[in-house]
Amino acid sequence: MKPAQDAIGAYPDFAYPEHWTRRSLLDLENLSAEEINTILDVAASLKRATDGCRTKLSLLSECTVANLFFENSTRTRTSFSLAARRLGAGTIEFSAAGSSLSKGESFIDTAKTIEAMNVDAIIVRHSTPGTPHLLDQELQCAVINAGDGPHEHPTQGLLDILTIREHRGDIAGLTVALVGDIAHSRTARSNIWGLLKLGAHVIVCGPSTLVSRRWEELGVEVVYRLDDILDRCDVLNLLRIQFERQATRPFPSVHEYALLYAMNRERMRRAKDDILIMAPGPINRGVEITPEVADGAHSVILEQVTNGLAVRMAVLRLLCHAQRDQRKEHQ
Amino acid sequence: MKPAQDAIGAYPDFAYPEHWTRRSLLDLENLSAEEINTILDVAASLKRATDGCRTKLSLLSECTVANLFFENSTRTRTSFSLAARRLGAGTIEFSAAGSSLSKGESFIDTAKTIEAMNVDAIIVRHSTPGTPHLLDQELQCAVINAGDGPHEHPTQGLLDILTIREHRGDIAGLTVALVGDIAHSRTARSNIWGLLKLGAHVIVCGPSTLVSRRWEELGVEVVYRLDDILDRCDVLNLLRIQFERQATRPFPSVHEYALLYAMNRERMRRAKDDILIMAPGPINRGVEITPEVADGAHSVILEQVTNGLAVRMAVLRLLCHAQRDQRKEHQ
Amino acid sequence: MKPAQDAIGAYPDFAYPEHWTRRSLLDLENLSAEEINTILDVAASLKRATDGCRTKLSLLSECTVANLFFENSTRTRTSFSLAARRLGAGTIEFSAAGSSLSKGESFIDTAKTIEAMNVDAIIVRHSTPGTPHLLDQELQCAVINAGDGPHEHPTQGLLDILTIREHRGDIAGLTVALVGDIAHSRTARSNIWGLLKLGAHVIVCGPSTLVSRRWEELGVEVVYRLDDILDRCDVLNLLRIQFERQATRPFPSVHEYALLYAMNRERMRRAKDDILIMAPGPINRGVEITPEVADGAHSVILEQVTNGLAVRMAVLRLLCHAQRDQRKEHQ
Repeated sequence: MKPAQDAIGAYPDFAYPEHWTRRSLLDLENLSAEEINTILDVAASLKRATDGCRTKLSLLSECTVANLFFENSTRTRTSFSLAARRLGAGTIEFSAAGSSLSKGESFIDTAKTIEAMNVDAIIVRHSTPGTPHLLDQELQCAVINAGDGPHEHPTQGLLDILTIREHRGDIAGLTVALVGDIAHSRTARSNIWGLLKLGAHVIVCGPSTLVSRRWEELGVEVVYRLDDILDRCDVLNLLRIQFERQATRPFPSVHEYALLYAMNRERMRRAKDDILIMAPGPINRGVEITPEVADGAHSVILEQVTNGLAVRMAVLRLLCHAQRDQRKEHQ
Repeated sequence: MKPAQDAIGAYPDFAYPEHWTRRSLLDLENLSAEEINTILDVAASLKRATDGCRTKLSLLSECTVANLFFENSTRTRTSFSLAARRLGAGTIEFSAAGSSLSKGESFIDTAKTIEAMNVDAIIVRHSTPGTPHLLDQELQCAVINAGDGPHEHPTQGLLDILTIREHRGDIAGLTVALVGDIAHSRTARSNIWGLLKLGAHVIVCGPSTLVSRRWEELGVEVVYRLDDILDRCDVLNLLRIQFERQATRPFPSVHEYALLYAMNRERMRRAKDDILIMAPGPINRGVEITPEVADGAHSVILEQVTNGLAVRMAVLRLLCHAQRDQRKEHQ
Repeated sequence: MKPAQDAIGAYPDFAYPEHWTRRSLLDLENLSAEEINTILDVAASLKRATDGCRTKLSLLSECTVANLFFENSTRTRTSFSLAARRLGAGTIEFSAAGSSLSKGESFIDTAKTIEAMNVDAIIVRHSTPGTPHLLDQELQCAVINAGDGPHEHPTQGLLDILTIREHRGDIAGLTVALVGDIAHSRTARSNIWGLLKLGAHVIVCGPSTLVSRRWEELGVEVVYRLDDILDRCDVLNLLRIQFERQATRPFPSVHEYALLYAMNRERMRRAKDDILIMAPGPINRGVEITPEVADGAHSVILEQVTNGLAVRMAVLRLLCHAQRDQRKEHQ
């Protein structure tokens, strides 16, 4: 892979971490702070080397990456595809909308068939928590969790953290609040694990039907009124109300929710001067965020989208290379 | 982008118009004759340089183009994708079949999210007239209208005109008739604007339920019987009856329609010796055209398909370069 | 196409057969043994040259291949796409799920439209036997049959035979049994034609509702009890029960079927020591095969998937080159 070397050679700040050995990215819970920082560093380097995730590098031109999505997704799937192709990798789309697939073993057979087409990484989204972990046990190729039910969505956590780091430098010591539907949010879980490992103070905030006291066991602060914490937050991450994951309606009305938890102009006045407003998207304007805040100077929502590319390029780069190295050793 | 230069260097007739500044292609109504000719000239050059739209050039190898289609389409979408990839650009498909998208603001949020993934151009098809114009106001990247309801479909107009130009040289002075469902046809509108600007005489012809006298205000001739104009047309463009856009049936039966408006062997005998038979496709054999005419010596229907690639390559080339140039200036 | 030459130059065992002239691959029935061996030889060479169908070659970087699938498929479609892209070709997906397409002439119009976008090969799957043959008559580009109803699926036959050849060397003299739903299986038909031409003894085995005596006319042995032939088979190819192709249920219950025809641990004990267990997939664990056999040492099911890439690369290579050569001659 000569061109890759050359392309990177032009960016002296790109240091490929020789010590990365992990084959899959399943969650942030089991990553060390060092591993998280490695991914963030590689993401930052790749972002610089590609003019802000715009141009291409030939780092993975020999690799093929498969999207295996059992839940609808256009954003995350497109982001992974673009990240792969910006590094020169080929992509295949395996949308398993029910069809010939049933459960249990045949699900693994499908994944093994894809692996037998010699892909280097399978990116999997599934409504059942633990699916990527199961695949990781059964396959030799890299497995990347793109969301397993309400459990984790590690690249979402990483891109949120990268965005904070770009604006604040160090994560340690920052106060970050996740607001809204904590109970059903894989984004919340991945953010919590990542932020805690890097030394942030994390608050989860929402109606008591969506935020339980048991979250305190993870080491986060549990709060029920956004107004109580506004003046001490460095970052607000406004989670979407995931109506599709809720059996019963956890609050009287959308209006009621917005009244207590929406970030609006009035609340912005009581927030820190340099507060960052984040949201994983798609946003519900008028529910968790008003248009003037979503489009305002503190909003970094679209930067998060761009950083999604950076983080996914970094993850693909690290895992596919570890993959290739291992295969060479076995030969 | 060295390779592009080299590839083009081999074709001395390829003159890239330095003066192109338009960021988006929204319609033909607002283009000047000079701009239309520029697109056609670049299309003709690219067609020559790619052995008739067959081989590849590396002109846009740093670019990514997104298809954002809110209406079903395989032809146009595939044509845009192929055009992009024949120039080395990457493509992403964003099929927004209802799903998580509602209307108004959230539609723009979707487009902004795609833009934040650093695409250079968004190709949009939507059932609401004016959607591409709205996007153009909200985005920084190039926006290409691939059909907005019954309003316009500019690349279809351009490919039709390119096909005529290839056979007749100059458009000025030709008599071109658009036959069929004028009322619901974005193809008709784009053809009318383009042809008039280049000096053609344009006739619209169809049942009075589908062709109103008010079209005369645009500067075209309105006719209700195909037989009245057959002997003075240089080109017939046979529009498909778009049943899906019609609330009520505008004529007694398909048979009745075919009797009055279908191009058949008998009508061909009364037409000019060198008449060109065109159709935007998909054609309904036996409705607006009989098989012997569709497959006959005067038919250029399949050439239109190939010219669709040429025109879309030209548009992508012009807009993406203007795009990149502007970004460089801002830096 | 300089790079292609270079890439291949590094593999002295790659001999491109100058004498290949066939434009399309429609079935195995009409191929000669020599032609089948040519495809297998090229497949084996390409597999070696790509590190087991893993890395890329630039043999078809000027080509575009279209998938035109009228039946659902993810495996075969993905396999063809990957094969094309591993050789540098572009791909377009034309999923004709009913939609604007009806039957007869308009189906051919669709294919002609795709051809007019200058594709080099159209890969077609359709529920009607003979569809690829019809297309072949109407088009100038290469046509590849990816399954036409219960008729043939030639690349499946070829990949099965390649897998046998890799393990046993010569096909001549081997005894190969196809077990299960012979009546509805295009895989069975393609295997039978290919294996017979290469000199194998072929047995078809299944319930009498799915295997008729008339198969003897093709030159195969017809057997109704798996237990009668176990000890003399070199290869068992376990076909899936294709419930979707059956009007009435051809056996009392799945349990009943498994009792008589499932390959399980007990039957393995009575089989030859070096028996190969194959299945075209997707497999129904517990129906035609038990998990310990599917995952056992004799199973080559996943090798078949990889060889699908090799065979499809070979077919695309041969047909696209014949295609390009013919075009040059015409110029």
